[in-house]
Amino acid sequence: MSFPNGIVHNLFASIPSSLPEELVDEVITGKGFRVERIVSKGHISPDGFWYDQDQHEWVLLAKGAARLRIDGVDQPIELSAGMHINLPAHLKHRVEWTKEDEETVWLAIFYQAT
Amino acid sequence: MSFPNGIVHNLFASIPSSLPEELVDEVITGKGFRVERIVSKGHISPDGFWYDQDQHEWVLLAKGAARLRIDGVDQPIELSAGMHINLPAHLKHRVEWTKEDEETVWLAIFYQAT
Repeated sequence: MSFPNGIVHNLFASIPSSLPEELVDEVITGKGFRVERIVSKGHISPDGFWYDQDQHEWVLLAKGAARLRIDGVDQPIELSAGMHINLPAHLKHRVEWTKEDEETVWLAIFYQAT
Repeated sequence: MSFPNGIVHNLFASIPSSLPEELVDEVITGKGFRVERIVSKGHISPDGFWYDQDQHEWVLLAKGAARLRIDGVDQPIELSAGMHINLPAHLKHRVEWTKEDEETVWLAIFYQAT
């Protein structure tokens, strides 16, 4: 058996130098879940916009830094590399800040509950 | 609404200084998948042992370094931070090496195919 090309990928590679919009790539999909890589560079949720999702989302900040806000919660959530958070479906949240001088790489799992 | 305690976790925290065995923690479970954090520090698969799993496994090396071997493939797979690989069910593989002087942190998703 020869070595299967392309079997190994890098979460921190294949990022264009210019990111006019957030970059979203599907990493893997299984029954009932989808994994995405999201790359932000200064991107934030539009003013007044809240994510209100039908699926749960577990998200890891793999690189960079960001600040989340949850609707109705005074305290913002500061995220740095290695930090992860589980956002139940319909928990309204927004991205208030991401680093502007470096890519912030998220790994997000969108899923149904057990 | 007050800030929910414990909503944010850190993949690189809560690691004991001594790791006589690999450390495995469940991060999250959904319908048809399970996410684990695995921490290795010099741990490798026992001689002659191959993982032969009923579920698919997608694994990210979040920190550290490791070398995998796939049964029947001559070339080993060197992994550093950010690299990820998808291991279909029953693809026999083993961990041939992990860093001895630093924790290697894996994020593994065990799942059923679509």
